[in-house]
Amino acid sequence: MLKLDFHPSGRHFLQIPGPSPVPDRILRAMSYPTIDHRGPEFGALGLNVLDGIKRIFKTQQPVVIYPASGTGAWEAALVNTLSAGDAVLMYETGHFATLWKKMAESLGLKPEFLGLPGIEGWRRGVQADMIESRLRADSQHAIKAVCVVHNETSTGVTSDIAAVRRAIDAAGHPALLMVDTISGLASADYRHDEWGVDVTVSGSQKGLMLPPGISFNAVSEKARAASKRATLPRSFWGWDEIIDMNRNGYWPYTPNTNLLYGLAESLEMIEEEGLDNVFARHQRLAEACRRAVRAWGLEIQCADPAVYSPVLTGVTMPDGIDADAVRKLIYERFDMSLGTGLGKLKGRMFRIGHLGDCNDLTLLATLAGCEMGLRLAGVPLASSGLPDAMAWLMEQSNDTPLKVAA
Amino acid sequence: MLKLDFHPSGRHFLQIPGPSPVPDRILRAMSYPTIDHRGPEFGALGLNVLDGIKRIFKTQQPVVIYPASGTGAWEAALVNTLSAGDAVLMYETGHFATLWKKMAESLGLKPEFLGLPGIEGWRRGVQADMIESRLRADSQHAIKAVCVVHNETSTGVTSDIAAVRRAIDAAGHPALLMVDTISGLASADYRHDEWGVDVTVSGSQKGLMLPPGISFNAVSEKARAASKRATLPRSFWGWDEIIDMNRNGYWPYTPNTNLLYGLAESLEMIEEEGLDNVFARHQRLAEACRRAVRAWGLEIQCADPAVYSPVLTGVTMPDGIDADAVRKLIYERFDMSLGTGLGKLKGRMFRIGHLGDCNDLTLLATLAGCEMGLRLAGVPLASSGLPDAMAWLMEQSNDTPLKVAA
Amino acid sequence: MLKLDFHPSGRHFLQIPGPSPVPDRILRAMSYPTIDHRGPEFGALGLNVLDGIKRIFKTQQPVVIYPASGTGAWEAALVNTLSAGDAVLMYETGHFATLWKKMAESLGLKPEFLGLPGIEGWRRGVQADMIESRLRADSQHAIKAVCVVHNETSTGVTSDIAAVRRAIDAAGHPALLMVDTISGLASADYRHDEWGVDVTVSGSQKGLMLPPGISFNAVSEKARAASKRATLPRSFWGWDEIIDMNRNGYWPYTPNTNLLYGLAESLEMIEEEGLDNVFARHQRLAEACRRAVRAWGLEIQCADPAVYSPVLTGVTMPDGIDADAVRKLIYERFDMSLGTGLGKLKGRMFRIGHLGDCNDLTLLATLAGCEMGLRLAGVPLASSGLPDAMAWLMEQSNDTPLKVAA
Amino acid sequence: MLKLDFHPSGRHFLQIPGPSPVPDRILRAMSYPTIDHRGPEFGALGLNVLDGIKRIFKTQQPVVIYPASGTGAWEAALVNTLSAGDAVLMYETGHFATLWKKMAESLGLKPEFLGLPGIEGWRRGVQADMIESRLRADSQHAIKAVCVVHNETSTGVTSDIAAVRRAIDAAGHPALLMVDTISGLASADYRHDEWGVDVTVSGSQKGLMLPPGISFNAVSEKARAASKRATLPRSFWGWDEIIDMNRNGYWPYTPNTNLLYGLAESLEMIEEEGLDNVFARHQRLAEACRRAVRAWGLEIQCADPAVYSPVLTGVTMPDGIDADAVRKLIYERFDMSLGTGLGKLKGRMFRIGHLGDCNDLTLLATLAGCEMGLRLAGVPLASSGLPDAMAWLMEQSNDTPLKVAA
Repeated sequence: MLKLDFHPSGRHFLQIPGPSPVPDRILRAMSYPTIDHRGPEFGALGLNVLDGIKRIFKTQQPVVIYPASGTGAWEAALVNTLSAGDAVLMYETGHFATLWKKMAESLGLKPEFLGLPGIEGWRRGVQADMIESRLRADSQHAIKAVCVVHNETSTGVTSDIAAVRRAIDAAGHPALLMVDTISGLASADYRHDEWGVDVTVSGSQKGLMLPPGISFNAVSEKARAASKRATLPRSFWGWDEIIDMNRNGYWPYTPNTNLLYGLAESLEMIEEEGLDNVFARHQRLAEACRRAVRAWGLEIQCADPAVYSPVLTGVTMPDGIDADAVRKLIYERFDMSLGTGLGKLKGRMFRIGHLGDCNDLTLLATLAGCEMGLRLAGVPLASSGLPDAMAWLMEQSNDTPLKVAA
Repeated sequence: MLKLDFHPSGRHFLQIPGPSPVPDRILRAMSYPTIDHRGPEFGALGLNVLDGIKRIFKTQQPVVIYPASGTGAWEAALVNTLSAGDAVLMYETGHFATLWKKMAESLGLKPEFLGLPGIEGWRRGVQADMIESRLRADSQHAIKAVCVVHNETSTGVTSDIAAVRRAIDAAGHPALLMVDTISGLASADYRHDEWGVDVTVSGSQKGLMLPPGISFNAVSEKARAASKRATLPRSFWGWDEIIDMNRNGYWPYTPNTNLLYGLAESLEMIEEEGLDNVFARHQRLAEACRRAVRAWGLEIQCADPAVYSPVLTGVTMPDGIDADAVRKLIYERFDMSLGTGLGKLKGRMFRIGHLGDCNDLTLLATLAGCEMGLRLAGVPLASSGLPDAMAWLMEQSNDTPLKVAA
Repeated sequence: MLKLDFHPSGRHFLQIPGPSPVPDRILRAMSYPTIDHRGPEFGALGLNVLDGIKRIFKTQQPVVIYPASGTGAWEAALVNTLSAGDAVLMYETGHFATLWKKMAESLGLKPEFLGLPGIEGWRRGVQADMIESRLRADSQHAIKAVCVVHNETSTGVTSDIAAVRRAIDAAGHPALLMVDTISGLASADYRHDEWGVDVTVSGSQKGLMLPPGISFNAVSEKARAASKRATLPRSFWGWDEIIDMNRNGYWPYTPNTNLLYGLAESLEMIEEEGLDNVFARHQRLAEACRRAVRAWGLEIQCADPAVYSPVLTGVTMPDGIDADAVRKLIYERFDMSLGTGLGKLKGRMFRIGHLGDCNDLTLLATLAGCEMGLRLAGVPLASSGLPDAMAWLMEQSNDTPLKVAA
Repeated sequence: MLKLDFHPSGRHFLQIPGPSPVPDRILRAMSYPTIDHRGPEFGALGLNVLDGIKRIFKTQQPVVIYPASGTGAWEAALVNTLSAGDAVLMYETGHFATLWKKMAESLGLKPEFLGLPGIEGWRRGVQADMIESRLRADSQHAIKAVCVVHNETSTGVTSDIAAVRRAIDAAGHPALLMVDTISGLASADYRHDEWGVDVTVSGSQKGLMLPPGISFNAVSEKARAASKRATLPRSFWGWDEIIDMNRNGYWPYTPNTNLLYGLAESLEMIEEEGLDNVFARHQRLAEACRRAVRAWGLEIQCADPAVYSPVLTGVTMPDGIDADAVRKLIYERFDMSLGTGLGKLKGRMFRIGHLGDCNDLTLLATLAGCEMGLRLAGVPLASSGLPDAMAWLMEQSNDTPLKVAA
């Protein structure tokens, strides 16, 4: 087999904000032999995952599963609902919002990109009032959809989707609400139905703890109605045939069988822990991470505590420090992968992922690796970040301390 | 873990014409932990598979790997090269050719469907002379592409692609040649460069012995030039950015990492056996299968011996027999999956896959299971098919018989 | 990784009478990370397997699990119950009975080897009347134990253990009854308590479908009482400390953790199928195998139909044929492993295993491989064996034939 | 599958001094299908591991591999070389030395137990001068063997075996030298030939990073000569037949095939890293661990820096603290397993394993978990241990710091 680990011993720490570490249990499930995707066993598998994934999106409506990575699900959301030249209101929260907008342009849509000026927009969540104002101004209802990113992976900001919904409603505007929660799903609380989202886009390789390769569209009735009128060419991404065949647990074309095995296992793991407990764990780890960053005296990319991401934390470098050189040093010396700065933030920050199959000790190892790497790279730190992180984690322990003294 | 095998003991025989059985060795390779798709180890993996896959397509030109199943690669071939309303000459070899044509319509193209009348077209290969005549008649060069299926999975017919190339050349027509060899690649001889194919479409779950989930476009310079002019909306499927980033072994968006591990292993396995030996093995097994079918007194779906598929054999049922009932009986009693009749052949035939990780004894088990199932289903058989199949396999043995007598 | 398969493609057919093919499901279970053998999770695992294995032995008494292969469990049975110079009555059913006797000698015991003369003893089961006579003659009760092999792996003979028990009882003799069912357990019906066996020896790599590496002693109260008086030196094999610690699911020294994972999975699989159904399946496959051998016109090693083994069938070669040359040819040409002739039968027969994770089609593939190999080796066969085997398997199907005709 | 992880998410930290964490790469190798242990592929495997394991023991002489756990290899060393009533000089370094002595008694030997008085002997290495004096006093050469533990797993002390050799030589005594390096092999430097060891005992589940289940005797010519005269009963453990059959890569009875796959992979991994680099890594991690313990103000069990173990560190609790309650708290809150205090040290200390597949960040996570657990358990700590551990690890980095500033 191809040698794939350049470090001689010990486990690699994969602390990028996705793909997140895939638990052994899921890798084992995925190694079940591929079966006939038209046979009765497959139908049982299909119904199992199609039902279970709805609970993760908190929806009663169909969730379409694509044998494609997350970028494909972005495209699916657009081509199913829109027509060439349609105006789309998108919001610039960071690099991934920008890529989605670029895709909209490639597909012949007319995205309008709202956002705070300069780097400021990449430090805060979606400003729902800006959306409301813009929609109110669109009295002709030229805007067909509002597209926002829930958890912006490039910055570590988790926007308030319920507020966006309220903004659209307040403006009395009929635009569809489309949300990318590729990196938020199953890590940050998300409510497709309650928040009135029309299309939610997500992927497998983040909170679901799977390898990349499957992706999702959760679809409202309003979105399905829009798809009847939408004229962008579509075939592979078309919802109708998939949703139709999904009723018996099958797909119109060959699905990604082994990743569906993994999804079944992932859903089982999440339900064993409890989805709310999963969210609480992410919040606990994220806060521990931020306390360490603050103790180091470094700046957190997200400037608004109300929208700190439970999934990842962006750490800004002092002037004159190349964040990617720090990452490289940490990779080479300590066998840990961190997320690079993307787009406007290239070289200025790195990102610590604390999502998915992560626990207290893994996070502390991650912080120790960052701290050693920063020091070796000559970044001046105010103090060690570990004491504050550890104090928080100890304090957060729910259980009554065990009796240990005689 | 979800229970996925309804039979209590023994190995399931997955003898559909794909997904084909995934060797343990590939399943093990796929269980390597997911890594950072932006890290140095990934780059090494990417270069390894991008280089190796070219040898399978027999091309020096780029092969684009999509994190999507084969249907997606069909769409990619069309949207990269064509514009709304373009005329496309497609050839009806069977169900998959029909589905590809349906996709072309969905995407706003104008496919013209050539073929022999009725069921006859589903029993023979592409008639290159019909293509030549049609192209000669197209003096305005309205036809932008000729699309044919190399190995038609629904019938077990492997068309002569070199002949199609000659036909296009003889007509002096500039149309692109696009070929689907989803189920032929790495089982039947295929030569992207030598045959002058512009876009070859393939997938992972057949001769490459992988689970479904990645697919391919091998792309000629002429096709890339066409893509500069083509105006169908595209983003996820766009070749340029992928080919550009592939130079260093990376992808513009998240690739299907664990399937790429599997692909690296698959390429290693194929090169260990030798690609020509792989082809010869498929031919040997296919002939054994056909000899059994003939001994049973049943008809082979492919009516032209020159284009028998080395990948699968379609077995036609006598009138009054529901092929799917036979398949169900075989599945339930003997734990073997066979391919169903598709489209025009629904209920009239079943398909035996003998591709990928298959050897003599597995094929004989398969034939034994078919024979018992046919008899239990009341299908009158002329004789047992095993003696002829075994005789052929014994005769085909290259090695000098070992001395065993004293 | 070390390359371990000399054949380029397709699945190897491992049709030796053990180690039997390990189902993927068990291999996956065994790949769970090794845990602390003193931690709470291990205790749960230990109790699970210690409880479950009793159901397989059909006993309420302790079953000791050793982190050692089956030969070790033979030694354990002897050193726990006997003292230097003790007389032991052993019965020669074949090669493994002979090896056990040789071990008894090495350990300083005085085995007396009963049996039918010459090769005849290797073709029939234990003659209980011979045991009864011998014990009646031992009026001083010098004989401390009677040792017999239940399923003799070298010949394919499954002796009647209940008859041996009755013989001992009829003789009114106090000797312990010790039985080796290493290759019988979980394939052939076995009843430790009902048959009054004092020590049953078994191993993992046969009916339990595990890799080799753990082995068993099921122990009666009488055996435990004998162990208090027995003086052969023992430490690793000593029952008492193990049985004592097993009450909480632990072992006094490091157990073979990953094989215990496999055992837990094996027990789950057997209970899903139902132990009696497992036995019936073995009987069905064994009969199919014998019908093929008879059709070939070859002799079955076991000469007494009452004691045909459900686990394996010994196939005798005509004079002048070297059975191992046939096996080598089959291995090289058809990628199938068969059992060699052992001891007195070296070169004169080969053994077909049809145990553990085996089903109808696998058996038919096995028979086809044997038949082709025999023919290529120049062995004259009366006829093909497959029709009779297939006819039997079709006839044995319980289900009502499905309706297939219109 | 049996649920085996009581914690809902994240990777368990298995920081006991063995079984050590099994790398994924080895678990994958072990999931290769079990093969015929009499077939040609097995012979290649056998020769591969039998050759490779010699390099780890640093010997040119035979290394016997048992399909049994380490305790069995202790027994093998004794029963192959000694006779009932033989005097054996053993040295009390801790719990495992005590268990080996207990075994010697069970087997009918007459062990004499040398050592420093009380707990002091459990804090220091073997005192070679005591052995020399004792042997000088044995002018009749009644003592047949000297048995010492190289790396005492219960205390974290690695004795100087070369010094023991010199002591025996200085005394001019013919006793065999038998050494247990079950937990030292492949973590601490060991030289079977250079140190003149007669029997070295080891196991799989420590530095070799395998699950438990195979164990070793490296055997000198002198030991083999002794085995000709030794009269303790033996069969399963007998060296001669195994060494004889090993010449072609086979074993006289069924070997533990899947663990041998793992061993082949382990040897490959160790040679990739380089055995000396493996030792250096263990020393680096061990020193980091000790620096943390000192910073906490807690006592290290090993009182002599010259014999600190590179494998594990024993951490002594202040009076009134139950070490096992601390361990339990750490297990429950932080999903980490630590080693318990054994024998005389029960409840008074815990043991941190830093062996095998361990790297800097895993060790720091381990230390963080210990520190939080100690604090939550109310153990007063002088200061955090992490800064000193991190400073050492940063300092130990060989590479020139990367340039990061602009």
